[in-house]
Amino acid sequence: MKRKNLFLALLLLPLTALAVEMKSPNGNIVLSFNVDRGVPTYSMTYKGKEVVKPSRMGFELTKDKHASMGVNETDLMDGFMMGETKTTAFDETWEPVWGETRTIRNHYNELSVTLFKEIILKRRGPADPNIQERPQTALRTMIIRFRVYDDGIGFRYEFPQQRFLNYFLIKEEHTEFAMAGDHTAWWLPGDYDTQEQITQQSRLSEIRGRMKKAVNWDNSSVAVFSPTGVQTSLQMKTDDGLYINIHEAACLDYATMHLELVDAQTKALSTELGGGSNAYTPNPKPSPYELPAPFTFVSHLTPDATGLKGCMQTPCNTPWRTVMVSDDARDMLASNLILNLNEPCKIEDTSWIHPTKYCGVWWEMIVGKSNWHYTDDFPSIHLDQIDWQSVKPHGRHAANNEKVKRYIDFAAKNGLDEVLVEGWNVGWEDWANMWKRDVFDFVTPYPDFDIKMLNDYAHSKGVKILMHHETSSSTQNYERHIKEAYELMNKYGYDAVKTGYVGDIIPRGDHHYSQSMNNHYLYVIREAAKHHIMVNSHEATRPTGLCRTYPNLVGGESARGTEYEAFGGNNPDHTCILPFTRLQGGPMDYTPGIFETKLNTWSNNTSWARITIAGSLALYLTMYSPLQMAADLPEHYEKYDDAFQFIRDVACDWDDSKYLEAEPADYITVARKAKGTNNWFIGGKCDENGHQSIIKLDFLDKGRKYNCTIYADAKDAHYEKNPKAYTITKKVVKAGDVLKLTEAPGGGFAVSLIAQ
Amino acid sequence: MKRKNLFLALLLLPLTALAVEMKSPNGNIVLSFNVDRGVPTYSMTYKGKEVVKPSRMGFELTKDKHASMGVNETDLMDGFMMGETKTTAFDETWEPVWGETRTIRNHYNELSVTLFKEIILKRRGPADPNIQERPQTALRTMIIRFRVYDDGIGFRYEFPQQRFLNYFLIKEEHTEFAMAGDHTAWWLPGDYDTQEQITQQSRLSEIRGRMKKAVNWDNSSVAVFSPTGVQTSLQMKTDDGLYINIHEAACLDYATMHLELVDAQTKALSTELGGGSNAYTPNPKPSPYELPAPFTFVSHLTPDATGLKGCMQTPCNTPWRTVMVSDDARDMLASNLILNLNEPCKIEDTSWIHPTKYCGVWWEMIVGKSNWHYTDDFPSIHLDQIDWQSVKPHGRHAANNEKVKRYIDFAAKNGLDEVLVEGWNVGWEDWANMWKRDVFDFVTPYPDFDIKMLNDYAHSKGVKILMHHETSSSTQNYERHIKEAYELMNKYGYDAVKTGYVGDIIPRGDHHYSQSMNNHYLYVIREAAKHHIMVNSHEATRPTGLCRTYPNLVGGESARGTEYEAFGGNNPDHTCILPFTRLQGGPMDYTPGIFETKLNTWSNNTSWARITIAGSLALYLTMYSPLQMAADLPEHYEKYDDAFQFIRDVACDWDDSKYLEAEPADYITVARKAKGTNNWFIGGKCDENGHQSIIKLDFLDKGRKYNCTIYADAKDAHYEKNPKAYTITKKVVKAGDVLKLTEAPGGGFAVSLIAQ
Repeated sequence: MKRKNLFLALLLLPLTALAVEMKSPNGNIVLSFNVDRGVPTYSMTYKGKEVVKPSRMGFELTKDKHASMGVNETDLMDGFMMGETKTTAFDETWEPVWGETRTIRNHYNELSVTLFKEIILKRRGPADPNIQERPQTALRTMIIRFRVYDDGIGFRYEFPQQRFLNYFLIKEEHTEFAMAGDHTAWWLPGDYDTQEQITQQSRLSEIRGRMKKAVNWDNSSVAVFSPTGVQTSLQMKTDDGLYINIHEAACLDYATMHLELVDAQTKALSTELGGGSNAYTPNPKPSPYELPAPFTFVSHLTPDATGLKGCMQTPCNTPWRTVMVSDDARDMLASNLILNLNEPCKIEDTSWIHPTKYCGVWWEMIVGKSNWHYTDDFPSIHLDQIDWQSVKPHGRHAANNEKVKRYIDFAAKNGLDEVLVEGWNVGWEDWANMWKRDVFDFVTPYPDFDIKMLNDYAHSKGVKILMHHETSSSTQNYERHIKEAYELMNKYGYDAVKTGYVGDIIPRGDHHYSQSMNNHYLYVIREAAKHHIMVNSHEATRPTGLCRTYPNLVGGESARGTEYEAFGGNNPDHTCILPFTRLQGGPMDYTPGIFETKLNTWSNNTSWARITIAGSLALYLTMYSPLQMAADLPEHYEKYDDAFQFIRDVACDWDDSKYLEAEPADYITVARKAKGTNNWFIGGKCDENGHQSIIKLDFLDKGRKYNCTIYADAKDAHYEKNPKAYTITKKVVKAGDVLKLTEAPGGGFAVSLIAQ
Repeated sequence: MKRKNLFLALLLLPLTALAVEMKSPNGNIVLSFNVDRGVPTYSMTYKGKEVVKPSRMGFELTKDKHASMGVNETDLMDGFMMGETKTTAFDETWEPVWGETRTIRNHYNELSVTLFKEIILKRRGPADPNIQERPQTALRTMIIRFRVYDDGIGFRYEFPQQRFLNYFLIKEEHTEFAMAGDHTAWWLPGDYDTQEQITQQSRLSEIRGRMKKAVNWDNSSVAVFSPTGVQTSLQMKTDDGLYINIHEAACLDYATMHLELVDAQTKALSTELGGGSNAYTPNPKPSPYELPAPFTFVSHLTPDATGLKGCMQTPCNTPWRTVMVSDDARDMLASNLILNLNEPCKIEDTSWIHPTKYCGVWWEMIVGKSNWHYTDDFPSIHLDQIDWQSVKPHGRHAANNEKVKRYIDFAAKNGLDEVLVEGWNVGWEDWANMWKRDVFDFVTPYPDFDIKMLNDYAHSKGVKILMHHETSSSTQNYERHIKEAYELMNKYGYDAVKTGYVGDIIPRGDHHYSQSMNNHYLYVIREAAKHHIMVNSHEATRPTGLCRTYPNLVGGESARGTEYEAFGGNNPDHTCILPFTRLQGGPMDYTPGIFETKLNTWSNNTSWARITIAGSLALYLTMYSPLQMAADLPEHYEKYDDAFQFIRDVACDWDDSKYLEAEPADYITVARKAKGTNNWFIGGKCDENGHQSIIKLDFLDKGRKYNCTIYADAKDAHYEKNPKAYTITKKVVKAGDVLKLTEAPGGGFAVSLIAQ
């Protein structure tokens, strides 16, 4: 051991030269790291402008009789000595299984810094009061690894396997992101259980004042934790025109990170928000952590049922903490930084994974015209006590043979790949928020859903049924049934499942975004992969690019989706901000395509979708996803079949994508080249103010002609007053031509360019 | 609805005559029930003596946004109106799959009382201040069902399915057991996670003063909750010679019940005990529950991670709360009240369930002579990162091919059915209390354990290997692997598994005895039954007679077993109290049979077993179990082969059992008739004071002769000074003969009577 200590001492020699720098490949971004009086600190500039001011990094740990291993547990926040630093360059191009482009370049410079912290070992046996003993000490090692890209940085903490850091418990991660000013931010209330909120646009200094009203208290599961807590990805804009985005990548077996803003009023982190029946309990003891300056975000992890944030075993690492930056908003959308920071694909045979267009028995239940459940005869349901064949149906059950066949016919006729059927399986009578563990078995159909006949019928028409597994957040129950449920899917030829996690998590006290739940979602993805099943996970944690590693994760929700158009409505700018925020981590199953936006014209629902039909078509481009739903009812599409032609035509996998225009919450215009073809599709979507687009078709093949169909808002279109007014124009175009398109308030446009 | 209300009003008419009585079949026990100013109350006498003074019954419920269902939630503690009462008599004889007797008589009188409680419904919409509205009300129904046996009573709460009580959350059950005096009790500290404690003998009034010292703070998981909290089954004795035992039966999907004593010092229930790193958190708010008189026990359920005691869905019921009573201590041991209150067997084909004698690769690891784990080369283990074939073994791994074959040979030679092998599977390097979720996979053997060869070898000799699944209390991990693990067992011919739950429960915050964990144990038993696997569950919740319904639950631990003889020792009277307490709910895998009691004579362990060899033999009779281990090392048995003959001979399934002598913590003598034979075996075990037994052999067949072998303590035998001094005497006896046997301090005797 003496030899080793000498070696460590040599490593620790260059203690005076502590600051290190790393530039991005093009030099625009400069990352600086320092150990400032024992505290690891980083900062970041873009073209010479401050993006992140000096910000501290570290962890509060907590003691536990089980995890101390003879060590007097201490925080990993200060007292660090710098060891070795390593720099490397990396440049590689890889091919995603599906994506916005055929290839993705992963180009960065890396800096890793090894840090040491001295700890005092526990005495074995009582001390001799007559002898002045020096305490026994040892060193712990923590590595901070930075990757500096041209469009941002990622960094993570790594904990090598080591004798004096085997297991540890995280009370809180304190990674700071010190902003240089009172930026404009597009934010959601920080919440342990939901992201189904309306995005708020405000100055950082205004977050506290707007928090209470910003929370969607009616959601089935709400757990906000701080009057200045916000979710990631957080999009910001500085007064001098920088776009900054904070998120995380590769969150695996670690709690999802939120950000808590320190503002002028902050007295302590995570103080009580008040109000709301399900609000968090404040930390019983104040943290020893010293507050940073105002406009600093501090990481805030999602706790388990006991308030703990993480159980760690070395070797291990945190997810990457990411800061993207550019002076061009389009770079925020085109960035592959999050995907690049994830591990390469771990699924060997990916031939069964495919982009999918689908319709489904869904919107009519969301709107309230029909039901998931089958009977009203029981005050509550015990799955093992009911003979379903003898149960009296109430007659409004949507997932019945006749209706499902009608959807299959519609899909087959219109080239849609799959038909989602929700409410096919028993248990929906009292499925949500009753603290029922055994709420579904995932294998027993209602009597009017003939699983074999319907799958045979679908397959005979070249269509698949898309499985639905609502778990009601009873995760133990889902895990108990998952193997049988997936075997049933294999037996009948399902190749994709939409999972759901509505309501508070069972076991009670856990949260949707905790370490254990993140592990659960990954368990589901892996089990599904074993069965060649694609996963579309609703109400799960927000994605952090895991679809690179597990490309069978083809979609997710984790935000306010189209369903809210039936629950009061989404703002017209909603889909102009989601690509900057929610979509950073992976595709969203937004379920676009509502044509009959005024729901009271065909149901008793008084809500309405704040979008024009042309705007709805645009979403198939601007809301990138390999999984795209045509969410409205077949009979509604049949009424506007000329517009529906675009949904028939549009691809959902791409060789190339070009973001032509973008401004958060204002407008997004993107052109995409369909995979394996020379066809392009363009979509433009805007907020309530409308937008003028001038599109230079300079990305088309030179010398080639294209049959161009333009689906645009009519002159007097308006998301509220006249949503169904659209025009369809056809012409032939070539590279270099210019399209001038007018988007109505809450509208948009869609263009198909089919190569001749 | 009006019609229904009228009907209810009629039912409620006999409100003045509220007290009802029910006698036991022989009339010795009288149960009285009353609704005393709205509060359900019961009391109980035995031969005219007070056993339970008037005691209240009820539940504190808690509000939850998810479970209120339009009801202003209220407690189920008072305001009750009595409805219908029903009385029935029941007398049936049933045959257990295995047991102490071939048949069991279930003979009781039943009283069920239907209670109604008015609740106020929630107003829909705002009130009109100008109108004085009567609140909308409705009735909730709760049934209390009593069964009155000659040796005690059982009662439970039943909640029929009903419109205004569908789901409810239990904050606490307040079932009182008001004792008539300051009885002597044999008690364990009430704890949410362990029963591995030394039994305390004291007056009720002395419990508080002895609690802190009574707790085994060194256990791997300790969560005591009150300075007067004790576990069930609780054995008591009154000054006028009544034996009273409080326990529960059929605890299914409900939290395990503890008892909290109200004494003269009690100011509030569940006040802080203080001390101990893992002590409970006191209730933040005092209960509205009014304290009963001193010497009253009040039920205290095990909470979940959020402190909640139960999530209920009607129709449902609680476990049976049981009070056994007699003026003869032997009746406490012979009682079948707990089994009778459980449901009949639910396993159709029970042909694969068999009583089992076994030895195992176990005691040498417990003592510290060899190890469960295989290598010392890693500070910690990630199962998916290690190539076990290339790992360097430390050389002390017990479960290796050579040793296991030796145990198989030993079992085959001595007629033992199975060989338990612990430490056969990878993961033991850091298995306990590290908050590791993925601690074992239950299917990967260490490189030196050839699972196929060893099973083939065992089967060729007519022996089976007994599987071991230590879960480290990581229950989610076990459930994820359980199907593959049991399929592996089926593949190689294992038919029994010993499960283990060492350490705190993962997910964190849960407890060994919570509703969700009780559901988990049952899930394991049922999954095992599907695979024709018998279960022996260690560190699980204490049994409540479920082995009647699921007879593949052949054993359990849930108490301080023989292993503690290597961890400081059990008191000599330990096995004279366990049959009165722990064994009430089902058999215990006590793993008796230690012959080389002074461990330092053959290992570095300085602990020693406080028992003589003859006493050890007695345990095979006095500690009834269909699963009996010969726990010591083969080489130790080979040294005392003449004594070991008794272990070879003794049965572990019985046609009849006669408790001849008994006094809690003093002595127990029992004679049992081996199943399907005319052979009898007698065992006597005593405490540190020794005991004189005079046994009349009046239970033998008249006219038949028996070859009698008596294994007795030698004259100078003593559990500490001379534990290995025994005598073996053979003679021929017949019905009516008398055996006079002297048990040494900490000793006992064993007798085999083989019919000629």
